This record gives sequence, structure tokens and C-alpha cells, in this order.
Amino acid sequence: MKTRSDKRPIGIFDSGVGGLTVFKEIKKELPRENIIYLGDTARVPYGIRSPEIVMKYSFENAKFLMSKGIKILVVACNTSSSISLPSLVENFPVDVVGVVAPGARAAVARSRKKKIAVIGTETTIKSGSYAKAIKAIDKSIVINGIACPLFVPLVEEGWTKGNIMTLTAKKYLSPLKKFGADVLILGCTHYPIIKDVIAGVVKIPLIDSAAETAKEVRRILEERKILRHDSGKPKVEFFVTDAPEKFVQIGERFLGQTISNISKVNIDIL
Amino acid sequence: MKTRSDKRPIGIFDSGVGGLTVFKEIKKELPRENIIYLGDTARVPYGIRSPEIVMKYSFENAKFLMSKGIKILVVACNTSSSISLPSLVENFPVDVVGVVAPGARAAVARSRKKKIAVIGTETTIKSGSYAKAIKAIDKSIVINGIACPLFVPLVEEGWTKGNIMTLTAKKYLSPLKKFGADVLILGCTHYPIIKDVIAGVVKIPLIDSAAETAKEVRRILEERKILRHDSGKPKVEFFVTDAPEKFVQIGERFLGQTISNISKVNIDIL
Repeated sequence: MKTRSDKRPIGIFDSGVGGLTVFKEIKKELPRENIIYLGDTARVPYGIRSPEIVMKYSFENAKFLMSKGIKILVVACNTSSSISLPSLVENFPVDVVGVVAPGARAAVARSRKKKIAVIGTETTIKSGSYAKAIKAIDKSIVINGIACPLFVPLVEEGWTKGNIMTLTAKKYLSPLKKFGADVLILGCTHYPIIKDVIAGVVKIPLIDSAAETAKEVRRILEERKILRHDSGKPKVEFFVTDAPEKFVQIGERFLGQTISNISKVNIDIL
Repeated sequence: MKTRSDKRPIGIFDSGVGGLTVFKEIKKELPRENIIYLGDTARVPYGIRSPEIVMKYSFENAKFLMSKGIKILVVACNTSSSISLPSLVENFPVDVVGVVAPGARAAVARSRKKKIAVIGTETTIKSGSYAKAIKAIDKSIVINGIACPLFVPLVEEGWTKGNIMTLTAKKYLSPLKKFGADVLILGCTHYPIIKDVIAGVVKIPLIDSAAETAKEVRRILEERKILRHDSGKPKVEFFVTDAPEKFVQIGERFLGQTISNISKVNIDIL
């Protein structure tokens, strides 16, 4: 019997460029798949906004990707995943995968002391999404969340090394020592870029949700038998709501490879 | 003859909370005026966005304020002023005042060496708006513009003092020494909050457009004979497109006084 091949693309959205760390892992895990990535660069960052606005923007992004005929929706943004995942699952007729649950699972599997630390944007930390996801697996685990609002602008500015980056990491993360966690979740897609600096301060293993999320996407596509099996070169398309040149410039730092096939979408059609 | 009193409010918009430095000066200069302030907190910051998107958001903000029956429009955001001022002037039937021209005039009046430095957001500096405004007054003046993207997040995080703030200021501003300017324009409404740190690095006089802009607003209202002369307490209203509590919290640091009478506007009606 010939295996059916599902050519519909995987849809990924993020508030901006950070979700490319998730895109990269999905591309590695599922190299044959067609992928559409949307970065909402006209309204980035999400991590400083209210849950209501994050919900609204997430729905608009999801609708845009649905209009492109995607077979699965990946919410690469931790803030969007923290706020809008249950509503997206409820309202869209495809599987929806966020980055919070896979990250939480990986952290629980890794922690021996049952003390897990999480860092993220203000809105992600305030939402308590990681704590909820971890407690759903093991109620006895204690979680400490710290918002690190300056990490994203530092990464976008390219100051990923040097004394300003290190001092900022120390200022945010030193209080964690007292807590005594044995695992730290990087709860924002920008943070893998500065993992060496973070590891240098906290000196415990770091969990990056991107790889875990990619495995989850593969598992779902396999289970549903909707993988693409064609031998032809897969198509990758990038969309942004503002400033494609800037997305390419910063994005190539994230991806470590060239970004092409990028278009600007008019925000009004979202 | 009895002097006519014009009760219509002054309308001020900014991308967020930073424009309160302009609001404060206008309130001081024109204490009897009714004022409406709009902070577009659902889409802040503007300084990282393209000119097209800054134009679009600026028009939406202006339309909202026009619907409130304002008598003059003040664009408190340097990025908006840099990009959209001529188009706003052309398209709206009230006087429109930005912060760039007043700041440029004050700097020219102050400079003896005819070398002026400007700091601002990426989009403000790229636009060359201050250089154009200065050259229009005196073509022989040389201008050096430096974008300082991390200043805004540092101020919003409240890290306005200490080694991280100082090191960041040194990193951005040290190259200015070689240029030899004798005046530095603070081309972003957040920067007055950290003027001591900036002054400590550059050691030349700083120009803050806010006070100059307030004088310009007074001059226009006087000229048009549309001042408010009522003895009754003036009305001040704040509107934001997201997270009013956060606006109040950070805004009170900017204003040094309590913010009340704040409402959230639905972004869809803009």
C-alpha cells in the first residue's frame, strides 16, 4: 500500500523573530515538511502586553495561517502559548501545539530535587503557565518564575556577550541560587541565543522548549498519518507584518543560515 | 470686550508612556487647558518599526483624538514626529505640533561650535529628521546621530541608575567624544528620565524637546486666540490601547504625580 503524502504546510507563528529557534528545530526534525512562518513584527513584543491583547493578536495570526491551508498550528511564542493556547485549541480545526507543555515535560523529566526555575517575559511569568503545566504532571514540584524583560532587547541589539549582558543576567538570576532549583526552563524563544551567559550564572542544566516542541509536532503528524513523503524539495515561506529586511538581518543570526522567500502581510487583513 | 474662552482640549499622543514628559511640560506651561492624552500601549514601541507602520499608527491615533474634538494636536513621540509630521499637518484640520522642530531650534540656539549630536530610537535616527530640521535653520551645522535602542527598555524596567545603565550609556555615547559636539539633543521622550547618566558620560549640555514643545503650543494657542480662560478646574483624560494599570505604574514615575481618569480604548475603533 502506498503511503499517503500530506503536502499541507506546518504553520508557525511568533511575535517576531524569536520563534525561529522553534522553526529551526522543526526543520531539523521534519526536513521534508513545507513550512509557513509568520512573525508579527508590526506589534512585537508580546511579553509586555495584557492577556487580552495577546489573545487578540494570537487569534489574528492563527487565522492568517489557517487561510494558507496549514495542517498543524505551532505557537512558537512563549507569551502566546501561555495566554492563548486553550482558546486556540478550542477554536481552530487543526492540532495546535504550544511551547509551554513540551518545555514543562522536559523539565519535569530532568529534575531530581523537584525544584524548577522558569525565566520568561513579564506576561509569561505572570500567567503562571509553566507552573500550571508542571503541577499537572507532578503536584509536589516547586516552581520559581522570574521575568527578565531586558533579555529580549539585549539579544535583538546583538549584545549577547560582554559585561552588560553578564551583569544583567546576574542581576536577574542571582536570586535563584537561594531557591536551589536543579533545572532552569528558558521560557522565551530569545533565550537560547544567550544560553552560555545564563548557564554561566545559574550553573544548572537549561531546558530549551524548541527541540521538545519539534518532537511533539513530529509525534502528532505521525499519529495522524499526515506527514509529507514527497521527495521534492519542501517549500518554506516567511511572512512578517512589518520590516522584512530587519527580520532577515536579525533572523539570520538566530538561524545561522540565509532567509529568503519572505513577504510582508498587510496587518489590516489579519 | 470679553475674551473668548476655548474649552476644546489639547490632544497629545505618544506610542506609550514616554510622552508624559511632554504632557508634564504642557500642563506646566498651560495649566488651565483641558488635555486628552493617548498612549498606544498595545503597539508600543514605535522606534523599532518601519516608517510605513509608524505612519499608519500615527494616523489612527490622530483620528481618535480628532474624534474627541481637540483644538490642537501634539505628537509627543519623537519617532512619530520624525516620520509622520508633514502628512499629519496636511491631513488634519487643526494645528499639529511635533517634538523634532522645537528640539532642533533649541539646539541650534545653544550650539557655538556648530556641531550637534542627537540620540534617539533606530527609526528616528534613520529618518534623519533632526538633521533636516537643523539644516533648515543653518546649513553649516554638522550633525551626528546615534541610535540607543536599549535606553527605552532600561527606563521602563526602572534601571535608571547603577552600573548596567552607566555602562550602556558609555557604550552608546563614547564615540561622540571624537565628534566634538557642544550640544546633545535627547531625541526620545524616555531620555529625560536618565539625563543625569547621559550628562555624566557626554559632559555637554542636553536639550530636552519637551519644554520647547510646550512653549510652541502656547504660542500657537495665543496666536489663534483659542486659549481656555475659564477659572473652573481643567479636565485631564488619559486613554491607552492596552494595560492601563501598567501605564499608571510606570507613568507615575515619569510624572512624579498620581494618574487618574484613565480608560482603555479598543484598538479596533482606532
